[in-house]
Amino acid sequence: MRLKQFVGAVVAGGLLGISPALAETILVTDQAAYKKAVVGLEPGDKLVLANGVWRDFEIVFEALGEEGNPVSLIAETPGDVIISGQSNLQLAGEFLEVSGLVFKNGYTPTSEVISFRVDADTVANNSRVTGVVIDNFNQPERQEVDFWVMVYGKNNRFDHNHIVGKRNKGVTMAVRLNTEQSQENHHRIDHNYFGPRQILGSNGGETLRIGTSHHSLADSFTTVENNYFDRCDGELEIISNKSGKNIFRNNTFYQSRGTLTMRHGNNNIVEGNVFFGNGADHTGGIRVINAGQTIRNNYMEGLKGTRFGGALVVMNGVPNSPINRYHQVKDATITNNSLINSDNIQLAAGSDAERSAVPVDSEFAENLIFHDDARDVFTVYDDVSGIAFSENVLAPMDPPEFADGFRREAMALDRADNGLLYPANDIGAGAPHDLSVTTKNETGVSWYPKSEPIVAFGSGRTTNVSPEPNALFYAVSAAKAGDTLVLQSGNYVVSKFLKIKKPLTIKGKGKVNIAFERSALFQISDGGSLRLSGVNISGKDAPDNAGNAVIRTSPYAMLENYRLEIVDTHFSDMDVNHSFNIISTAKGTFADNILIKDSSFEDVTGAVLKLDTENDDYGIYNAEYLTIANSNFKNIQGALVDFYRGGTDESTFGPHFELTDSKLTNVGGGKRNKSAASIHLHGVQVTHISGNTFVDSKSFLINHTVGEPKTRVVDNKFVDTLLPKNYELNSGLEPTAVIENNRVKNQ
Amino acid sequence: MRLKQFVGAVVAGGLLGISPALAETILVTDQAAYKKAVVGLEPGDKLVLANGVWRDFEIVFEALGEEGNPVSLIAETPGDVIISGQSNLQLAGEFLEVSGLVFKNGYTPTSEVISFRVDADTVANNSRVTGVVIDNFNQPERQEVDFWVMVYGKNNRFDHNHIVGKRNKGVTMAVRLNTEQSQENHHRIDHNYFGPRQILGSNGGETLRIGTSHHSLADSFTTVENNYFDRCDGELEIISNKSGKNIFRNNTFYQSRGTLTMRHGNNNIVEGNVFFGNGADHTGGIRVINAGQTIRNNYMEGLKGTRFGGALVVMNGVPNSPINRYHQVKDATITNNSLINSDNIQLAAGSDAERSAVPVDSEFAENLIFHDDARDVFTVYDDVSGIAFSENVLAPMDPPEFADGFRREAMALDRADNGLLYPANDIGAGAPHDLSVTTKNETGVSWYPKSEPIVAFGSGRTTNVSPEPNALFYAVSAAKAGDTLVLQSGNYVVSKFLKIKKPLTIKGKGKVNIAFERSALFQISDGGSLRLSGVNISGKDAPDNAGNAVIRTSPYAMLENYRLEIVDTHFSDMDVNHSFNIISTAKGTFADNILIKDSSFEDVTGAVLKLDTENDDYGIYNAEYLTIANSNFKNIQGALVDFYRGGTDESTFGPHFELTDSKLTNVGGGKRNKSAASIHLHGVQVTHISGNTFVDSKSFLINHTVGEPKTRVVDNKFVDTLLPKNYELNSGLEPTAVIENNRVKNQ
Repeated sequence: MRLKQFVGAVVAGGLLGISPALAETILVTDQAAYKKAVVGLEPGDKLVLANGVWRDFEIVFEALGEEGNPVSLIAETPGDVIISGQSNLQLAGEFLEVSGLVFKNGYTPTSEVISFRVDADTVANNSRVTGVVIDNFNQPERQEVDFWVMVYGKNNRFDHNHIVGKRNKGVTMAVRLNTEQSQENHHRIDHNYFGPRQILGSNGGETLRIGTSHHSLADSFTTVENNYFDRCDGELEIISNKSGKNIFRNNTFYQSRGTLTMRHGNNNIVEGNVFFGNGADHTGGIRVINAGQTIRNNYMEGLKGTRFGGALVVMNGVPNSPINRYHQVKDATITNNSLINSDNIQLAAGSDAERSAVPVDSEFAENLIFHDDARDVFTVYDDVSGIAFSENVLAPMDPPEFADGFRREAMALDRADNGLLYPANDIGAGAPHDLSVTTKNETGVSWYPKSEPIVAFGSGRTTNVSPEPNALFYAVSAAKAGDTLVLQSGNYVVSKFLKIKKPLTIKGKGKVNIAFERSALFQISDGGSLRLSGVNISGKDAPDNAGNAVIRTSPYAMLENYRLEIVDTHFSDMDVNHSFNIISTAKGTFADNILIKDSSFEDVTGAVLKLDTENDDYGIYNAEYLTIANSNFKNIQGALVDFYRGGTDESTFGPHFELTDSKLTNVGGGKRNKSAASIHLHGVQVTHISGNTFVDSKSFLINHTVGEPKTRVVDNKFVDTLLPKNYELNSGLEPTAVIENNRVKNQ
Repeated sequence: MRLKQFVGAVVAGGLLGISPALAETILVTDQAAYKKAVVGLEPGDKLVLANGVWRDFEIVFEALGEEGNPVSLIAETPGDVIISGQSNLQLAGEFLEVSGLVFKNGYTPTSEVISFRVDADTVANNSRVTGVVIDNFNQPERQEVDFWVMVYGKNNRFDHNHIVGKRNKGVTMAVRLNTEQSQENHHRIDHNYFGPRQILGSNGGETLRIGTSHHSLADSFTTVENNYFDRCDGELEIISNKSGKNIFRNNTFYQSRGTLTMRHGNNNIVEGNVFFGNGADHTGGIRVINAGQTIRNNYMEGLKGTRFGGALVVMNGVPNSPINRYHQVKDATITNNSLINSDNIQLAAGSDAERSAVPVDSEFAENLIFHDDARDVFTVYDDVSGIAFSENVLAPMDPPEFADGFRREAMALDRADNGLLYPANDIGAGAPHDLSVTTKNETGVSWYPKSEPIVAFGSGRTTNVSPEPNALFYAVSAAKAGDTLVLQSGNYVVSKFLKIKKPLTIKGKGKVNIAFERSALFQISDGGSLRLSGVNISGKDAPDNAGNAVIRTSPYAMLENYRLEIVDTHFSDMDVNHSFNIISTAKGTFADNILIKDSSFEDVTGAVLKLDTENDDYGIYNAEYLTIANSNFKNIQGALVDFYRGGTDESTFGPHFELTDSKLTNVGGGKRNKSAASIHLHGVQVTHISGNTFVDSKSFLINHTVGEPKTRVVDNKFVDTLLPKNYELNSGLEPTAVIENNRVKNQ
């Protein structure tokens, strides 16, 4: 065993195991030493990065190993080598192996964090990245696109890695087939932990993509198996398959919004995967497009997804489809899947004037469909005679009427040792009993925690705050994540911005009046969330300035989605100048949810909610859920809400808007209210407005832009207020909003 | 002499001069010591801040001095006490004196930097702030409002201070009259150096304001004298007078855009002031509104301002005007002013349906009006019979026809020792020979440099750059302000953002081709400016991502205005995805000027210039001057420019747009081009489009929103392109754009 020492190097051969004869183990402690050592590595050599933080390190690992005798780049101790700052890793050559590194507290200066190439011509083959962590290694700008793992070349393996917290735009991991040297690649992607990825609020939030539409008729031969997808909620596609002959096997999808989408490419196999929805909104299963797809032995439970996000979706195609549209489903085999308490199976989905090619030569057999609610889970959008249905079993609902091949059987389900539900009796349908379920612990690495991403309101300490000058300011500054500040009775005059950088609850006790002297009272900054209750807020001391707000987000992009809850809180005197908004959000910020309950708002020169700053029509928006209940709005010159989701892509589930049991009086009539509406919804996907009273207010303006938005305006009372207008901007459809059972009274 | 020592204190009484008997001199070295020492100060005491940097220091200086025996807060050495971080100063009490401090590298956490009060009830009287510097002490957000000096109370003096570089929104200095204890205040504001204030690009950029409209009928008795206003270009009003009985005397206005505006309040005197325009755009003089104003013995030279920004403007009023509109000019005395080579005197300006009350009972006498160009400088908008004109002298032009009281005299002007031009002969008109001109050196402090705000392109070193990987990136990172990078022939593939943080010139030598792999090639960051020439830029390697750009500004607010010049540069293949713009600007950023010359642009899926991100209609915009000459635009799906200035206030001179001798072919026809126009101008104030050819392009959309925008579209050729549309959105006028001498040809 040859040994070399570089600047400050310590040989750790013993610790690192025995290398083959003549192989070297080289410990490097700085970038200069790394650059020197990486030249001339030979098969079997191990280049060891010393423990510590490596800042601004663009690692180029180019070498030639041999089969069974790779060149390795490893951590001195797995998990103790931190790559931070502006750093990345490029591999090129043959038989390389990288392990034990942690990428955190930084981002890549290029567009890729780990790349299996150094330039367009120089890729890595027969190489492996294993036991590597990428944790919140995000571009500072939410909408700046990059990719964490890009696999080029052939016969590469990416396994046992821990990948969590991608918050900016761009697929987390992708296999590229852009040149011949990266096609028919036989990569293996296995035993990775894909940890929580928050809702992106636009296209570009997939966790894994194999191929692109452009090269989707090429075969990839990539195997994706035994991975754990934990709340991968980025967008509509958890996995976007865009090439041929891939296998997706025995992966677990835990409460992840969206589906495994067979978007492009033919002859793929999806088998033995397990989807647990846990009843969460938009949890989906498998979406089938293209020819020769096999979907067998999968298990879906508790999936609530609808439309393209259902538990099982078989799409219509476009006749003679361009490469980037929808190819017809043909020769699909969908057998022995269990769909338990999952709400939607969609057949011939997406049928419209363009997507008119129905599924053909396909089979749907021996599937088990069970739903506690006896719900009819099927929606059939077009002719499904091209699908042969046979030996499918349902319970407890009646067989559907659109086809034979379903039978109802009485059954009880028991949970087996593998965690899945099976009928007590053998019914000859559904997923096999020996389905092996990949658990969280089997994926990623043992030495890095799989932690929870969210700190709940009220989970920390409680502190009392008195109305002394600056006391609230200092209390907010000092609070820890999850803390609650209880404001004692009195008048608070706040002369500085209250910057909310953690999840925080602010609660009034007795009569709490707050006035403020800056252009905003609260600023929610990155990492912050706010729950406000039991206080009265006046705008009377705010500066004589257009565009004040009570609560605003950081003007900078926020990587972390935030939550805002306003309960039993009363707002008044927001009229020192024009365009005084209650809640004002900035471009590049995104709320997971905004809740307003039991609150009142009076004399406001702007809007109550400005959620319309993503106006580039790139499909981006400001908030996923906006829910307003039992609240009162009076003399609001702007709209109750301006809610904007532009673009014509169909990649997001939101935004969602709900307004119930509230009263609006004189809302929307100000001359600066651009929409001239009391409620302005543009591209909102799910709208529910019921039990409200609208008095002397402007009408709503509801623009449907894409997809099949669900809008219901029912059981409201309109007094001297016109009924809503609904426009279908791109579909050419008649208005689809359901506007019914409303009472109209003009005085 | 009593002495006290605080933590680490050193007594410096000798150095600081002799205090009266029993007075103390207390040196403090940290905030805790300050807080202890400030309690119980007595007349004559001197509290001394030790030299060094005081970070995050909110100084509350509350004490009671006596006449002739003040309580002082002073620097150990003037200029060596730096107040930085989140800091400010509040004074309250009687007979206080503060001197020698420097506020820089920070900003106030409240809305005021120096405030003559600690709260609404507790002000400072008979107090003085002298020899203090505030240098670029700006809020991080350009549009966040604050104020650097707010004077409350009575009999205060603010003198010999150096105030430079306010870049965020908000008046630099104001006298408040909001309570009785601040009215009839007899303040004196003198010998201050008001250094360059860049164009704000919205309302709120005044340098000095006395009062507010609300209290404008109160008298202030403030004297503003011997100050130097050096390029105070913030907005239309350099000084905004909004109260009564103030005196503005012997101030120098050096090349400052805008006017001394007598916006509200009566019986003010403006005398002996000197305005040097140096021929710069929008340099103005005095604007007269309200009753009882005296404007005498002032000197204006080289002022190019037009409309409300002219050398001398007498406004029409609104009959029975509300307090915040225009009160009629009455009893104005305008005598013995010299207007030399100044382009505009406007009488009854602003006359319209609302402003119909013409000036009355006024005098315009013994003024000297001289213009080298023999230009007729008068514009008369309404009946001026209420102004008595007498003994005014003109040269060399003919007397105007609207009134008697003018005579022409042949004269030659000589520059006198005081720097002003006088007729060789005594003609009995114009400013007096003994007018004392305040010079820059007489203002501010001797120990702080009055430096130039702008580093010119090409003023630094020149460095050659070769097309090696990353060479351009490192060259840009290493460059200093004013440097030039000369790119040698070859192909450059840029894998990282090139962040421009200083004024930089990038110049091609031979054939230089640049492609880039991130979503933008250049990002202009705060402090950066770019001049680009002689290169070819292709978008072919840009990511498959909507919204790429070749040049973009920082997504964060930029405090410093930037310059962008593109000369002899050629752009192609900007079509990898939709909405690929050439130049894309972010909210909160502002270009002093953007120049495109001798360049070409081909195959662009977005716009060439996105200058429309200030869409809140707060009167903010993205660029002051956009000039395009001799360039070629072909197959541009978006507009050549989307240029947006919303709002209905009349506080800005810009934006300006000029397009000459260029050719547009197939521009604006993309389906995502919201305006559906090839040129989209909204609220642009000055537009000149001539000598161009438009082929097969969309029409222009020109929206006039406020003021009296000047739009000229002349001598162009329109081939298969409709003539422009001009809409007057708020004025109710017929379209005012001059669209003439264009040739139209449809094939």
